[in-house]
Amino acid sequence: MFGYLHLAANPDLAATLCAIGLTAIAFETVQENNGTLPLLAPMSDIAGRLSIQLGAPLLHQPQGGKGLLLGGLPGAERGRVTVIGAGTAGGNAARVAAALGADVTVFDRKRERLVAMRDLGENVNALYAYPDTVAEAVSGADLVVGAVLIPGARAPHVVSAEQIRAMQAGSVVVDISVDQGGCIETTRPTDYRDPTYVVDDVVHLAVTNLPGAVPRSASQALSAAVTPYLLTLAAGGLADSPALRHGINVQAGALAHPALRQ
Amino acid sequence: MFGYLHLAANPDLAATLCAIGLTAIAFETVQENNGTLPLLAPMSDIAGRLSIQLGAPLLHQPQGGKGLLLGGLPGAERGRVTVIGAGTAGGNAARVAAALGADVTVFDRKRERLVAMRDLGENVNALYAYPDTVAEAVSGADLVVGAVLIPGARAPHVVSAEQIRAMQAGSVVVDISVDQGGCIETTRPTDYRDPTYVVDDVVHLAVTNLPGAVPRSASQALSAAVTPYLLTLAAGGLADSPALRHGINVQAGALAHPALRQ
Amino acid sequence: MFGYLHLAANPDLAATLCAIGLTAIAFETVQENNGTLPLLAPMSDIAGRLSIQLGAPLLHQPQGGKGLLLGGLPGAERGRVTVIGAGTAGGNAARVAAALGADVTVFDRKRERLVAMRDLGENVNALYAYPDTVAEAVSGADLVVGAVLIPGARAPHVVSAEQIRAMQAGSVVVDISVDQGGCIETTRPTDYRDPTYVVDDVVHLAVTNLPGAVPRSASQALSAAVTPYLLTLAAGGLADSPALRHGINVQAGALAHPALRQ
Amino acid sequence: MFGYLHLAANPDLAATLCAIGLTAIAFETVQENNGTLPLLAPMSDIAGRLSIQLGAPLLHQPQGGKGLLLGGLPGAERGRVTVIGAGTAGGNAARVAAALGADVTVFDRKRERLVAMRDLGENVNALYAYPDTVAEAVSGADLVVGAVLIPGARAPHVVSAEQIRAMQAGSVVVDISVDQGGCIETTRPTDYRDPTYVVDDVVHLAVTNLPGAVPRSASQALSAAVTPYLLTLAAGGLADSPALRHGINVQAGALAHPALRQ
Amino acid sequence: MFGYLHLAANPDLAATLCAIGLTAIAFETVQENNGTLPLLAPMSDIAGRLSIQLGAPLLHQPQGGKGLLLGGLPGAERGRVTVIGAGTAGGNAARVAAALGADVTVFDRKRERLVAMRDLGENVNALYAYPDTVAEAVSGADLVVGAVLIPGARAPHVVSAEQIRAMQAGSVVVDISVDQGGCIETTRPTDYRDPTYVVDDVVHLAVTNLPGAVPRSASQALSAAVTPYLLTLAAGGLADSPALRHGINVQAGALAHPALRQ
Amino acid sequence: MFGYLHLAANPDLAATLCAIGLTAIAFETVQENNGTLPLLAPMSDIAGRLSIQLGAPLLHQPQGGKGLLLGGLPGAERGRVTVIGAGTAGGNAARVAAALGADVTVFDRKRERLVAMRDLGENVNALYAYPDTVAEAVSGADLVVGAVLIPGARAPHVVSAEQIRAMQAGSVVVDISVDQGGCIETTRPTDYRDPTYVVDDVVHLAVTNLPGAVPRSASQALSAAVTPYLLTLAAGGLADSPALRHGINVQAGALAHPALRQ
Repeated sequence: MFGYLHLAANPDLAATLCAIGLTAIAFETVQENNGTLPLLAPMSDIAGRLSIQLGAPLLHQPQGGKGLLLGGLPGAERGRVTVIGAGTAGGNAARVAAALGADVTVFDRKRERLVAMRDLGENVNALYAYPDTVAEAVSGADLVVGAVLIPGARAPHVVSAEQIRAMQAGSVVVDISVDQGGCIETTRPTDYRDPTYVVDDVVHLAVTNLPGAVPRSASQALSAAVTPYLLTLAAGGLADSPALRHGINVQAGALAHPALRQ
Repeated sequence: MFGYLHLAANPDLAATLCAIGLTAIAFETVQENNGTLPLLAPMSDIAGRLSIQLGAPLLHQPQGGKGLLLGGLPGAERGRVTVIGAGTAGGNAARVAAALGADVTVFDRKRERLVAMRDLGENVNALYAYPDTVAEAVSGADLVVGAVLIPGARAPHVVSAEQIRAMQAGSVVVDISVDQGGCIETTRPTDYRDPTYVVDDVVHLAVTNLPGAVPRSASQALSAAVTPYLLTLAAGGLADSPALRHGINVQAGALAHPALRQ
Repeated sequence: MFGYLHLAANPDLAATLCAIGLTAIAFETVQENNGTLPLLAPMSDIAGRLSIQLGAPLLHQPQGGKGLLLGGLPGAERGRVTVIGAGTAGGNAARVAAALGADVTVFDRKRERLVAMRDLGENVNALYAYPDTVAEAVSGADLVVGAVLIPGARAPHVVSAEQIRAMQAGSVVVDISVDQGGCIETTRPTDYRDPTYVVDDVVHLAVTNLPGAVPRSASQALSAAVTPYLLTLAAGGLADSPALRHGINVQAGALAHPALRQ
Repeated sequence: MFGYLHLAANPDLAATLCAIGLTAIAFETVQENNGTLPLLAPMSDIAGRLSIQLGAPLLHQPQGGKGLLLGGLPGAERGRVTVIGAGTAGGNAARVAAALGADVTVFDRKRERLVAMRDLGENVNALYAYPDTVAEAVSGADLVVGAVLIPGARAPHVVSAEQIRAMQAGSVVVDISVDQGGCIETTRPTDYRDPTYVVDDVVHLAVTNLPGAVPRSASQALSAAVTPYLLTLAAGGLADSPALRHGINVQAGALAHPALRQ
Repeated sequence: MFGYLHLAANPDLAATLCAIGLTAIAFETVQENNGTLPLLAPMSDIAGRLSIQLGAPLLHQPQGGKGLLLGGLPGAERGRVTVIGAGTAGGNAARVAAALGADVTVFDRKRERLVAMRDLGENVNALYAYPDTVAEAVSGADLVVGAVLIPGARAPHVVSAEQIRAMQAGSVVVDISVDQGGCIETTRPTDYRDPTYVVDDVVHLAVTNLPGAVPRSASQALSAAVTPYLLTLAAGGLADSPALRHGINVQAGALAHPALRQ
Repeated sequence: MFGYLHLAANPDLAATLCAIGLTAIAFETVQENNGTLPLLAPMSDIAGRLSIQLGAPLLHQPQGGKGLLLGGLPGAERGRVTVIGAGTAGGNAARVAAALGADVTVFDRKRERLVAMRDLGENVNALYAYPDTVAEAVSGADLVVGAVLIPGARAPHVVSAEQIRAMQAGSVVVDISVDQGGCIETTRPTDYRDPTYVVDDVVHLAVTNLPGAVPRSASQALSAAVTPYLLTLAAGGLADSPALRHGINVQAGALAHPALRQ
């Protein structure tokens, strides 16, 4: 299963784990000293790539889109992609959109991420996420990807319903952060059985478990990320691993993670 | 409208055109001296690109695919794409598959096309289309694109039903040449209302009018290709344009194109 | 000296050459069977590259420009370059603009040139030169390069004074075709002593002999182009060289080139 | 305003700020734990790019240069660029010179910077800054960029007047570090009204405020860098921000920065 | 001399150094806080690149190889390279193999290295080093490079003799880690006088001092790495340099490094 | 067998073929209308690539070379490669040298080849083959590749023994054109049993049948080239194939090719 069962949203499970008395480490809270979340990263890699791979065909007319080939071709314009958030998920979305030949603008607030985004290709603009700049880029985009992920918190609404309304009919929105509430006001969670819905003539894709579409690749990538930590655990190295200790949710019969105790 | 109404398949229309007495030039028979078909080329550009853009999501589990991310990612293998035919359509398919990061093998019989394919990227193999080499590459592929187009003739079957049966369950086939009969034995024409079907656990996409999904881009690219010839016609230059003269299907009340007279 | 002395514009010289009785071949009329002008090509290479290399600093505020770094940078937008004409000169302009990181749109009417332009980089759009599309791209550009060159004829005005007026103040225009009259209505010839002038707050660069700025590189490239033809001449091969014969302007005491006899 | 008013050079201003009693943070002294100067970085980005964008045309004959097209072209050699210092400014200079097609050699003393420079392109050499190696590369260069910046200190003279004299007539020197005294012995500060001067037939550009030429791009990039720190300040986060605290120049009526107290 | 004299393997030398009473710092134990070994890195750069540069010709028939051009060509398949270990040496091997056009698979256990390897090119797969995945990639490879280097410890055997036996006849193995015992079971140290031997029809190259082939490049790169530390030492900065202090092997008449005291 | 048995050099074989009365077509004389030699091209592809792949290790000290890593590395200079002739063989040599990171200069006399060579990478200079320019580039090169091939004629000596003597000791020369007599004065044919010899401290590689080292790749590429012509022959298409007719050496009991009749 790809996707994670958050204890915060499952008080019964949390209580049971406390009662059992074991030490429980949650994937999504394992964190390296530099702030990275190594067990979430492969899922963000995939979600970012899928946001473009699934979003591009939604621009096709049979799917309700405006009838645009995202990358353009000789004699026809490139489509415009706006990515909000240049973390692992947003960065992967920008990378695939750039590879397909789209005209990409990606927003973030950290200089080092803006520098990294520019290096993805000469068809990538990297700009600071001022609200009015984002609004303008959203209304002019053919495809908007929301990728604002704040570890352990609900994603803020960085795109308003009004901004979505300003997009051309047949445009597309993919909100990767839907599993944390979504960073776009018009987002509501869907799944792969009925993945899209339309708001103000804009097609929305907001599947909560995007990587679930590619379990073969996801399990391979996730295993690669998890195995070093499992080997550390198996060798009795929990005490010496700050990353694993940071991920402890339940210990000694009590909720141990700050986010759970609140 | 994208897609073409072939006179050969519409004897009534042909008869009517003869009766009217006008000179009729068919898009698909305009041909430059070097053998290129300038008014078909933009449609082949699009069909080739769409074959990958639509084929990649068919590898996802919700669409019946094997659950593979075509381009792979750090820690997970790249998917394998086999493209049969390195003309305009096949070349564009190989280009997009390479950009997405797949491991691509493309087959053709012309050296200059093999050289051009190698130059698309270091993840492209370019090989001569020996039947057994093609068969091996088909059975090992996650995504097969058929792009064998012979101007004015039915596409030959270069991939047999048996070879399709040898593919892994959840693999995908896209046959671009379906509007000329298809180059894969298991191909049968579909349209965008019900684009795919499954044969031997392999998902098939064989929409006859692939560019119909992106009319905005297609009309822009097609106009770019057609306009120079229209300007030539409008300036009375038909007699001086070998390409246009080659495209004449009906003239002086009679069928004028060799393919029609047969 | 780089630049060429056209006999058509120098009747006295033409008369003198006829009187002398020699056979005179003009650089700019040597033409290969495929229509290329091998002795003009290196100068077009240079003029195209210089149009961007000289145009980019004109966007700087001290030169009267809008204060823009053409290629953008992390956190700042890329500038927009519109190139009209994708021949040797325009193609080289697009190539350098793309390398500097600008957002480039290049116009032409030939499909093979549009295909070649797209291959310059993912920040290059290649579109058909419809008048309204060109007008829109001109008014939205920071830097416009005019590169419409029709061998042996005055360049047509593809950009009107009104379109120049629609550009933002501090924008820049470089007209490479100025030595054939210019393809922009507001163009008037200048030289390197006073290379620019301002019309409607738009800085214009229209030096008639652009390659004159880099004589060292120009003479090296021009020699490379001329030498094979000189060797042919020296070996008595004029009669067997269609390209050279095509370039004969004066022969047997008379004007021999069609363009001169008119 | 781009450029910075250094308190060290303005004792009156420093005294006034102390008298007022406010806490003053200087842009150029805000420093992250990893040693980077986040508010100087965008200006270094720009200065580095401009050093090539302005330096290349100085190689043209009308500007007194040797008449060279920096990037070369088919049939003509590429120009040679020597960049001294591979920090943010020097790295950006090397990047633009490489993109233009020059033959680039960049010097630094840190292995990680040499590795990063090699990755800019196959036309970049990255070498340790031994005095004799630098001297040889300077004398053989068409364009030398000085980019040795030592935070808070006068730049050392890494290129002597004698080495400049050894350069070919018509070569060009751009000293980015001029606002810290210059790293080339023949450097003396200029501004955009009279930006260049000639020493020993070598054209010198040493504008102290290089980014001042592109205020539109500079303010966009600088705002992107400053805003996160302003938001931190506005939220009362000075005490928790080591970077901002490092930048305090005046506090509680006294000079607070070590460099100022000396 | 390139290669290092390890004190651990030279007890007499160690004793002598202790007796003399000097402070001895060993190149291979100088270590930065982030775990990098700055004085070993240039040698690993070279060894990695040489492993492919020397390994590719061993695939030629006159050297006993299978007669394969490693990078393939239009009409012929690319060779397959498996690199085990994505540190400095393995990463450089993967980079050169990718540049030559081979189909490369590289194994490591750290996510950040897998991400870096994918960025080398679209012909590089980056996978977690599970024993069975490695075994499969080894048996299917034309060229295997062993680059598992554990600082201060004997390299583990990650490839068994049985796996080597499963390779096709005429395949090639290069073991870079031979100077630490080798990470391939069939490795035995050789030198450049007789660099290769054959086991089970697989050609082995296991020269202990690979960089010794290119002393000119090696001394230039090594000097660039060493000089900053020498300057620190000469300036009396040993006490302030954690990297140098980490490298002290002998001090005050005694063995000072933990690895030596064991 | 790779390599060709030239009838011109085997009068007995020619006489026998005439006596038998068959029609004999020689691989090396099949020629397309555009002048290309389709059955020689794959061998030239391989010879060009091997010239660098075999030449680079000859620069290593154990092989008598100067001890240089051809592509350089961070902190060490790139080696210089001079390629004379930018046809199929020379172009492939330049391509591989550029991919390895060398500083490449390639000479030819045709503008279109110089343009193609520049496009191989920013580390490739493309210059006209003036004797003095070639001489200078040879004497300054670490590795010289001779690739001047004139169909049906002895290769001219474009590099003199004196120029070879001017090279640094430990430099390397590979003469691809050795099977046509060699284009370097010091060339004498060798084979893979004893492939190199030294003249004036310069290592020479002049194996007459370079592709013989990689029979697996060569037969795959050659088959890809030959098969279309075999299919044409088998279908009785000799009369309609100008390329094949051009390749007829013996017909109706007589020598049919102009080069043989002389």
